[in-house]
Amino acid sequence: MTGEKPVIVLVRPQLGQNIGKAARAMLNFGLTELRLVAPRDGWPNPEAGPAASGADVVLGRAEVFDSVADAVADCSAVYASTVRRRDLMMPVVGPEQMAAAIRSLRGRAAILFGPERSGLATEDVALATAIVTVPINPEFGSLNLAQAVILLAYEWSRGSDLAQPPAKELEAPAPQKDLDGLVGQLEDHLEAAHYFFPPERTVATRQTIRTILTKARWSSREINAVRGMLRAIAEPRRR
Amino acid sequence: MTGEKPVIVLVRPQLGQNIGKAARAMLNFGLTELRLVAPRDGWPNPEAGPAASGADVVLGRAEVFDSVADAVADCSAVYASTVRRRDLMMPVVGPEQMAAAIRSLRGRAAILFGPERSGLATEDVALATAIVTVPINPEFGSLNLAQAVILLAYEWSRGSDLAQPPAKELEAPAPQKDLDGLVGQLEDHLEAAHYFFPPERTVATRQTIRTILTKARWSSREINAVRGMLRAIAEPRRR
Repeated sequence: MTGEKPVIVLVRPQLGQNIGKAARAMLNFGLTELRLVAPRDGWPNPEAGPAASGADVVLGRAEVFDSVADAVADCSAVYASTVRRRDLMMPVVGPEQMAAAIRSLRGRAAILFGPERSGLATEDVALATAIVTVPINPEFGSLNLAQAVILLAYEWSRGSDLAQPPAKELEAPAPQKDLDGLVGQLEDHLEAAHYFFPPERTVATRQTIRTILTKARWSSREINAVRGMLRAIAEPRRR
Repeated sequence: MTGEKPVIVLVRPQLGQNIGKAARAMLNFGLTELRLVAPRDGWPNPEAGPAASGADVVLGRAEVFDSVADAVADCSAVYASTVRRRDLMMPVVGPEQMAAAIRSLRGRAAILFGPERSGLATEDVALATAIVTVPINPEFGSLNLAQAVILLAYEWSRGSDLAQPPAKELEAPAPQKDLDGLVGQLEDHLEAAHYFFPPERTVATRQTIRTILTKARWSSREINAVRGMLRAIAEPRRR
């Protein structure tokens, strides 16, 4: 087994039954870490167990978070399982590319799945490092939650026993919380400089900032260096 | 598209709902030919439609047979989806090998799936040319019918046209002169903030700055955005 197992993050899942089915699909391919962001009907959910068909170990260890940002704070790579989003400028990979990247990652990866009905919201996808899209029949494009989970879990497991040592990245990309720290600091500086104008553009601008900084894939050390430079530029008088 | 699409054969399926889910899983990956051998509750089954979530074309064309032999009479290769059977001396392949063999086959292939509860009977498996086994967690080995169908349909589609979406054109990384512009501007700001200290560290620090900014692989558009932000932070009074 190379690389850490990815974490499966269900964002605002609706039915307990589907959480159970997702847990079963995970365990079929050896994945055990499930995180739930604001499950609609609370947690634990009595409908999850029967649907898990014995994958209770996954449900028992499931952790609940208030936000996607909290759920992926310790992850160095975050994949958003969704269809292509033309509104976001992000890398789009297939399941195979994602699996290979996860196996060679130093640090943990998370895979985000959206609510059954609506899928991931734009602001959830924006937190990811890449979109992962299963190439399905363009004329019939709906995968249910457990099916999406099982396909990506299967794809991850395909290469997990391969003996060849994958090329490792030199320095691990920083965990998401470090990236969040950089984004927050830059936004504070920009706020102080009255950069966010006009107000109606602010959300899009913040989105762009996050996308640009996410793309850089900096390590924690590099992020610290950038934060130091920004601080120096923003507060020159202190020095 | 190479080779004919495989036929999915559900042997003595029990619940109409599961037939519907299998049809949906098929159509997700472009498979449309469904054959039913002695479905327990007859055919058509009113529970199949809702579970198919729109894959009615598959259900509408489904054919019913009395026996597995009849259902696969026109097929040149028959794969029995099951766990390994020690009681039968047959080739056992993985999903990937099966998919490759189907694509290079002249003639049609069928994939058999057994009843939900019991799986394929020995005499059904004996009619196959090979067993196909999805390598799952040995400690948690149950795949439900629709999941087994979707994994094999996905594997088949990987090598077909469906599986090759044109890679999304990410923006090209900026030409070097744009990167140089960013590096120069950042260094000017840092200089003005007296960041380069002590002097003997300056060369190494400049090197680090360039490495960090090079690593980001930003496009020209992104570099311009970053330059605008840096300018705003460095010269807030102008705004």
